[in-house]
Amino acid sequence: MPQTEMERLIELLAKLPGLGPRSARRAALHLMKRKDSLLTPLAEALGRAAESIRACSACGNLDVRDPCAICADPERDRAFVCVVQEVGDLWAIERAGVFRGLYHVLGGTLSALDGVGPDDLNISGLVARAGEGEVTEVILAMNATVDGQTTAHYIAERLEETGVKVTRLARGLPIGGELDYLDDGTLAAALEARSPAAR
Amino acid sequence: MPQTEMERLIELLAKLPGLGPRSARRAALHLMKRKDSLLTPLAEALGRAAESIRACSACGNLDVRDPCAICADPERDRAFVCVVQEVGDLWAIERAGVFRGLYHVLGGTLSALDGVGPDDLNISGLVARAGEGEVTEVILAMNATVDGQTTAHYIAERLEETGVKVTRLARGLPIGGELDYLDDGTLAAALEARSPAAR
Repeated sequence: MPQTEMERLIELLAKLPGLGPRSARRAALHLMKRKDSLLTPLAEALGRAAESIRACSACGNLDVRDPCAICADPERDRAFVCVVQEVGDLWAIERAGVFRGLYHVLGGTLSALDGVGPDDLNISGLVARAGEGEVTEVILAMNATVDGQTTAHYIAERLEETGVKVTRLARGLPIGGELDYLDDGTLAAALEARSPAAR
Repeated sequence: MPQTEMERLIELLAKLPGLGPRSARRAALHLMKRKDSLLTPLAEALGRAAESIRACSACGNLDVRDPCAICADPERDRAFVCVVQEVGDLWAIERAGVFRGLYHVLGGTLSALDGVGPDDLNISGLVARAGEGEVTEVILAMNATVDGQTTAHYIAERLEETGVKVTRLARGLPIGGELDYLDDGTLAAALEARSPAAR
């Protein structure tokens, strides 16, 4: 029978996304079976992460230093700021290796349902950055969801005063996407944004 | 971009059952967003678990004390020992609240493929316990898998010398099970072990 220490551990593990009460139990047992190779290293890694990893005061990225490695990198193009909802989105774009500018992490989206207003997101920081003169283009890379697009619209409006160019990611067929499996919204967007075919 | 500390944390989280590289990334970000409410408590809970939780020297259950709460409980019936593969199986039976005897955790099953022999499992400990005189029945509660049943057969043979009664869990329809969805093996077992119907 699980004892208090174990129950507490399972309860905390169950709060991780992707783990429920059942899989948290399995994970806890898995950890207990691998005390030296997994449990202790994980406890230490979490402790170190708690101590050393901070949000970058410029862009909101997570890193052991502030400003973060991206903001501090002299090779990055300071004229472009890509606005993302979460740090995970920043990582996804970095993994793709397709963007050499800077980022700005909002920390979520506006949401009337969840009571998230403009002051709960890092929007005024973005407006301030955009107004500093170095930035020429702000790329809105929010999710193509209702909340994401509401937020993008709001931010585009707020950025108008700064005079910087504001763009958003294109909509269309994902690479490898099959028409038969696509939702109507994507099809409509792809049709609307059609471009001349290569001959 | 994930930095070294973060990458290490993600790598360790990805080793938990149920989490892959992608969900480990999500979990790490989830933890970083909830430093005080989740990350630090989890690090501490893992540290405490590593320090205080041990395998019971009598039955193999995990607990902060040795012998474990079940073995130490004077209310439990020492005549019955239920043999399970893993601590998780013990917890499952305890959750069901249908057994008031003691347990014996093997720590796995015999497996020629994975090179697990009798000496890798806690089998000699079971034979010793069964021979001590207090035990009258050993219930083999292995999984109904090939490895589980191979192990059960082997243990039943090893226990012959002790003279204790050796039983195994019944096979048949799971409660709520529908014939149309059951595998052939379960149907065959249920038919073979049929019992007189209530009138």
